[in-house]
Order: sequence, then C-alpha cells, then structure tokens
Amino acid sequence: MAKELKELTPRAENYSQWYNDLVIKADLAENSAVRGCMVIKPYGYSIWEKMHDELDRMFKETGHSNAYFPLFIPKSFLSREAEHVEGFAKECAVVTHYRLKADHATGGVVVDPAAKLEEELIVRPTSETIIWNTYKNWIQSYRDLPILCNQWANVVRWEMRTRLFLRTAEFLWQEGHTAHATREEAVAETERMLNVYADFVENFMAIPVIKGIKSPNERFAGAVETYCIEAMMQDGKALQAGTSHFLGQNFAKAFDVTFINRENKPEYVWATSWGVSTRLIGALIMTHSDDNGLVLPPKLAPFQVVIVPIYKNAEQLAQVSEKADAIMAALRARGISVKYDDNDTKKPGWKFAEYELKGVPVRLAMGARDLEQGTVEVFRRDTLEKETLPLDGIDAHVATLLDDIQKNIFKKAADYRAANTRPVDSYEEFKVEIEKGGFLLAHWDGTPETEERIKAETKATIRCIPLEGDKTPGTCMVTGRPSKQRVIFARSY
Amino acid sequence: MAKELKELTPRAENYSQWYNDLVIKADLAENSAVRGCMVIKPYGYSIWEKMHDELDRMFKETGHSNAYFPLFIPKSFLSREAEHVEGFAKECAVVTHYRLKADHATGGVVVDPAAKLEEELIVRPTSETIIWNTYKNWIQSYRDLPILCNQWANVVRWEMRTRLFLRTAEFLWQEGHTAHATREEAVAETERMLNVYADFVENFMAIPVIKGIKSPNERFAGAVETYCIEAMMQDGKALQAGTSHFLGQNFAKAFDVTFINRENKPEYVWATSWGVSTRLIGALIMTHSDDNGLVLPPKLAPFQVVIVPIYKNAEQLAQVSEKADAIMAALRARGISVKYDDNDTKKPGWKFAEYELKGVPVRLAMGARDLEQGTVEVFRRDTLEKETLPLDGIDAHVATLLDDIQKNIFKKAADYRAANTRPVDSYEEFKVEIEKGGFLLAHWDGTPETEERIKAETKATIRCIPLEGDKTPGTCMVTGRPSKQRVIFARSY
Repeated sequence: MAKELKELTPRAENYSQWYNDLVIKADLAENSAVRGCMVIKPYGYSIWEKMHDELDRMFKETGHSNAYFPLFIPKSFLSREAEHVEGFAKECAVVTHYRLKADHATGGVVVDPAAKLEEELIVRPTSETIIWNTYKNWIQSYRDLPILCNQWANVVRWEMRTRLFLRTAEFLWQEGHTAHATREEAVAETERMLNVYADFVENFMAIPVIKGIKSPNERFAGAVETYCIEAMMQDGKALQAGTSHFLGQNFAKAFDVTFINRENKPEYVWATSWGVSTRLIGALIMTHSDDNGLVLPPKLAPFQVVIVPIYKNAEQLAQVSEKADAIMAALRARGISVKYDDNDTKKPGWKFAEYELKGVPVRLAMGARDLEQGTVEVFRRDTLEKETLPLDGIDAHVATLLDDIQKNIFKKAADYRAANTRPVDSYEEFKVEIEKGGFLLAHWDGTPETEERIKAETKATIRCIPLEGDKTPGTCMVTGRPSKQRVIFARSY
Repeated sequence: MAKELKELTPRAENYSQWYNDLVIKADLAENSAVRGCMVIKPYGYSIWEKMHDELDRMFKETGHSNAYFPLFIPKSFLSREAEHVEGFAKECAVVTHYRLKADHATGGVVVDPAAKLEEELIVRPTSETIIWNTYKNWIQSYRDLPILCNQWANVVRWEMRTRLFLRTAEFLWQEGHTAHATREEAVAETERMLNVYADFVENFMAIPVIKGIKSPNERFAGAVETYCIEAMMQDGKALQAGTSHFLGQNFAKAFDVTFINRENKPEYVWATSWGVSTRLIGALIMTHSDDNGLVLPPKLAPFQVVIVPIYKNAEQLAQVSEKADAIMAALRARGISVKYDDNDTKKPGWKFAEYELKGVPVRLAMGARDLEQGTVEVFRRDTLEKETLPLDGIDAHVATLLDDIQKNIFKKAADYRAANTRPVDSYEEFKVEIEKGGFLLAHWDGTPETEERIKAETKATIRCIPLEGDKTPGTCMVTGRPSKQRVIFARSY
C-alpha cells in the first residue's frame, strides 16, 4: 500500500487527533462507506486474533463452550424485560423488509414494499433476549444446569458519534451467557469472569485495572449488579475494559424460564452475562503508545521481533540472510514470532520507522560490519533504546527482553495511574481536580441524584465502587450524607 | 438437558427426516425464534471450530491474512455490478430505520418513523461490493498487490425454504477476497484455493470431491469463472462443498479500482473470491452418519475418544478411574483428545447410546473384570465393531485406530460415489437413471438452453465440468450437437 507521511500529531498537541492518526497510519482500521462501521485491517485484526485466542482459552479452561445464536432479534423480545428495553431498544438497526426489486426508472434497486416483515427484526445490540428465549427449551431440571455458553459475534448499536475501535456502530465482541440453579452460583460465576477479564487485561494487554461494581446509573440494563474493570488512558480519562453482570432472575422471569430444583419445586433460573469487545484495542493503543507510534505488549504483538538486513549488494544480503535464518530458527524454537524483512524496494531507515509505528517490540538490525564482529543491533520499542550485542546467545537475550518489555509497559502504566489517582474531600476541590484528569477517590452518598448532579456539573461519572482497597466510611462530598467507602470518579471514554 | 428418545428415523424410511432428527438429537443445532435462522449448539459449534482452525491455518500457510469488513452494504453498491445485483439483490434483509421508540398504547416498542435511513442498508449476503469499494483506497500501484484477505463472518440470504446447516437465512462462513496485478496470477489464486478446499474436505472431513468448473447457469453472480468441489451424499444427491471464483476485472470496473502496472500504465485490478460455510457441517453429517447417529472423522471430532467406567460401587469406580487417568495421560501425550464420563446419574448403556449418537470415533469401556484381566473394551463408531484388548499399549492401538477410521470412512464414501457414478449416452437413458440418484456423466452441447431444458424436465443440473478424468469429445445427449467432454449431472442440495 502506498504510504503517506508517517508523522503523527503529538499527544501533547492533540491527544484525540494523535489517536486517530495512529489507528490509520499503523494500518489498524479505517472508516468504511457505512456510517459508523469500521474496516478492521489485517494488522489490527491480527491483534484481535491474539486477544481472541487467549480469551477463548481462558473461557474454556473455566468450563465454557462456544455456541452461536441468531443475528436478529424479534422486536417484541426487547420489550419483555422492562429495564433492558430502556437501555437497548433505542438506537438500533431495524430490518423491516426482506426483498429488493429492480427499479426500471433508475436501473438500480428499490425496497419491495410487498416484502414487509410482519414483525420487524432488530440487529442484536446484545443477545440476552434471544438466548434466554432459547434457554427456555434447554432447561427443565437442576440437572440441566449450569449452562456455560459464550458467543463470538458482531453486534450493532446505532451510535451517533463514533470513533474507530472505541465506539462504532458495529463491533466484534464475545458475550458469555450462563444459567444457574442458585443465586450464589451465579454471583460466583459473575465474579469468576470479572477475574478472568482482569487477569487477561493485566497479564496479556499489560494494562492495570481496578475491579469494582457499577453504581445503579451505570449498570447494564436488566442487571441486578454490574461488575467492571476500569483502566486509565494516557490522557487521564477512564475506559471501561470489561463488564460482568449478575442478572438475577430478571431474564428468566421475562422469558419464563423455570427449572425443577433439588427440592422438586419450580424456580426461576439465575443468570449472568459478560463481555469484552474490539474496544479493548482502543484501550491497548491509548495505554501504551507514544508519539512515534504503537507500543504493543509482546504477548499480543502480531510478530514480536523483526529482523532488518543492512546491505550494499546481493552478496552481503546473502551473508546477512544466512545469519538471520539461524537467529529466526533459534527464536522460533523458543516460541517467539519473528519476521524477516528483506524487501528490496524499501530502505532500512524507512523500515525502522515503519516497525516503530507498528509497535513491533524488538528490532534486530544486521549489516556487514556486524557479521565481521559477530554482533547485532538490538532495539526495544518501549524505551527506544538501542544496543549492539554479541550474536552468540542473542535468542536468550531477546526472550528475556520480551519479558522485560511486557513487565515494563505494565509498570509504566501502573505508575502513571498511581500518579494520577488521588483522594479529594470537598466538592470544590473535586471541581478543580477533575479538570486535571485522572481518577478521583471521593465519598458519595450512594444516590443516583447526587451522581447525576456531579455528572451534569463536571462531566465526571462514578467509574466504579472498588472491590479492593480502602473501605473506610465517610461523608458525601456533595451532600454531607453518609458514605460507605470512597468511589472512583473520572471522565471517561 | 433433558433427553428425548434417541431413536432416529431410519435413512431408508425417510432420508430427509433422518437428517433433521439427527441434527436435533445429536445436539448440533436447532431452529430459532427467527424464521430461517438457526442456533448452533455447543456440540455443533465445536465441530465448526475444528473446521475453522484447520482452514484458517491453511489460508495463512498460503499467505492470506484475516480482516473484517462491515456487516452492512449500502443498497446502491449492489447495483454497481450488473450480474451481481441480479444474483444477490433479491432475497436479502433490508435495514430501513435506526431507532425504536416506546409505544404507549401497547407498552411495547415501535419503529420510529423519524429515524428512517436516507439510503437503506443491506445485511451482507456476500461482501464483494463493500470490499472492492474499500480496496479502491488501498491500491495505487502494482507494489500494493497482491492483497490476500480473508474474512470469517456471518451472512444473510433470505431463503424461503430453510434446513438446518444446509440452507439457512443466516449462516457462518469465510470469504476470501484477493486482488492481483495480472489475470494469470488471479487465475492461479482461484485454482490454489480450490485445491486448498479439496485438500481440507478430503483429508479432514473425509469426503471425496470432484473438482470442476460451473456451467454459466450455475456461475457466481459477477464471476468470469466459478470453480467448485462437488460431493455426493448418501441419498445420491450432490452437495456443492466450496466455490472459488475468478472475478476477472468485473468488480474493479464496477468500483473503479485501477493500479499503475509495471509498464507505468493504469489497469483495472484482477480479482478472486472463495468461500465455504457452515453448510459443510450438513455435508459432513450426510456423508458419513448412519441410523445410529453421527459418524465423525477423527480429525474433526470435538473429542476423539470417550472412556466409560463400569462399576458397582465407589471403590470399583476409584480403581477404574486410576487406570483411566493413566490411559488419558498416554492418549493426550499423543495429541489425542479424550473425555472421561464418570457421571453417576447415567447408566453405561445410556452413555454408549449417547456417544454413538454423537459420533465419538472410539469408545473405551472398563470394568472390574477388565482391571483383573488387564483389558479394555474398544468400540469403533464407524463399523460398530467391539473387541477386548490388553490395556498395555492401548494408546498406540487407539492412535492407529483413529487413523484407520479416518481412512475407512473416506474409502466408504469414495466407494459409494464410485458405485453411483455412471456414464449415460442418451437422454432417454438419462431420464431413467436420474431417478435412481447419483452422478451421471453425460455429453452436453455447452448451451444454457439445453441445461435449462434438462433441469426443467428432470430436476437435474450440471454440478460441474470436471477438471480431471476423461476429456473425450462426443455429442450432446439432448441436441446431438458437439460436446467437448462429459459433464456431471445430478440432483442437488
């Protein structure tokens, strides 16, 4: 593909523009001809594949199976659960017809008015309704429980303001939907999956997260309790990285799903649902990347190492290639993915900039002098440091370096978050501090009214009521009423 | 899940009902609340996952990358390629609105007439148009070519008569879309992917296929040439198992996608597309299964071996379980997947029937007497044969047995096809023979008119013009006009 100038808008100049530039210039995604829908390009998609594979493994290790449910939901299903319809029946894609016909006037096609559906179909914004309508036929007795299903799918929410990965009309995600015989088991499942998400986001994406519970205002429409993990981006804004919902018996009641329990009595089934989406790619970009481009955690990089040969003629290239082959074999034997770029139409400097932009964790460069001296130049993307090292044992060095990069970018993000998280005790102080960004730990009286007032006046919302950390009670910074613990306020994506 | 009676309608009694019974009773899929859309249940989906993983590996080994394009296609895009619109703009799901609103009269929701889209969106029936509209921006020069993308996605075609897996309104598939600088390269790609499909279907699904070219009547709408692989089901009907299309410059012209070639001149880009879908699961079922249930090829079975303990008390179970653990470890070390079913609420006989129904290739049963004698009962699903063998070396025996089952079911299908494929030389003979099912090799004059007449009179179509085998010219059985070679006629799914 033809390359435009690689320069990104610096973060300090315009963070939002930096993000948009980076997504486009690193070949991750682009806007499509359809409003709000993105094209995920091969490089961006390969990051999603890595994420998919790890999450899928974790879901299976915790006993879940994949299944697939319909893209379409009958309109009436959305109305069955009173809160769910409020949250999801608004901005969605509605299928009203099932046929087009030739338009002889224009030579194009028009909707065939004769092919109107009796009941409109909604393109799924989330699948609780169609899945619980299905589970009704799968569940008779406690012996049929639990059901532990996950689905990898596309969903559509007709967002008015969209941004690549962060908020798109169509996005890819996974949605787990489980059915249980007891409240306790469903709550335990909700918490288990929150922990799976936190494990994945921290240990693979290298993004530190805070585990917590959403306030009623931010709860999933139809949930009894929404658990979440919240991350801090480099501009100090929060990004919700995953949610796990305890749905109680709400959907079982809406779709009349009962089972005969161990006491031989009918009872409504208990439910959970949980999901993460391609939005996580936005989080990944915004947490680690810099003004030179992407910084990828080695565990999710499409390739972890790139080798660039430096040569003046075919003979030199042949010599370098021979050494490179040996290095690649040694790296691959260690399970490290590596690309050799001997493309003759690009200069090494161009390649260096390209792989920096694309966030390849480690770059090795080798030329004639390196061959003579038995050395190789090693560049690490996270710190932009370069050193010349002996070729001998380079595979072991790279393995250690990749581990180190994975840890270092996590630590950098954790340090940034720590430096931008602080308690505030008065609403006056809050209004000043929120302008600086970051997470504010403040006391809140637990009411939706107070949260709404704070949001209206400061654009900050409660990101979560943290599950861990200080639980000292206090008094609400706004109303002075009692507060059980400090909660996290921030502006968010 | 509660189990109904496991008996299937025998194939000889009603082949179509046998298929429907089997899909439901083996927990592969079921109909959903949305007309024509299926729910793929965990066991069925796990077969699709195995298929996905092998195909995805094969695509990547042949240089392809995955990407993701929008679910929706602007209506006007479908009209750009004249033949494409004929084929795909008819029965499709049309999104006309993007919002619902509360209906105070009923307490439900209704489509908000104010939220009408300026241009309707079509839920993709296939993605050539949206992808070529995207490629326009990716391609300037021959240096940007080839583009070798694949997409795993759901698609929707509003079929009037649907059957689980075989023909559903929504189905899952992969669609490859490649762009090339020369006709020769695009034709080579089309053929390469046909060979990948044939390799996969024969060596993983154990289904023999005939590679061929479609007659103009059966060609993909917008293709210059459609290559296909055709399989024969147990009722003698044909099933198209995969297609690979050489699209020429048709879509490049429709979306104005040109590149500067090596001679520095603008030229339209050459294209291919190729796909297989969840329909293949229908082919898998119909090729190998019997009146006892599914027969799965070991290479695609969700688990290849099941071990069922036979015991009278907890002590016996503990003893059998200890041996079973050792067998499982030895099997897993050989890369064989195995399930141990010590569920106490089901009797061994029930389990035997269940795993037969679900097509698990090998079943091992072990009881107290086996422990005493150092033996294990080995059952192979394909031939229903049972033998008692020494426990010692059982892992090596099972590995060989799995290979043998994979080969045996392929051979059985190939023998069946050979027995039901024959040449016919007159149209009178053809009309008699077609009633018996199978593939008829007959001479045809190459005209759509003759093919249409044969179809109208016999319900048989040309499945393909075979690429391999006898190429002797002759005269058309209907018109007596010259024929280049015999082609394959059959009734088909």
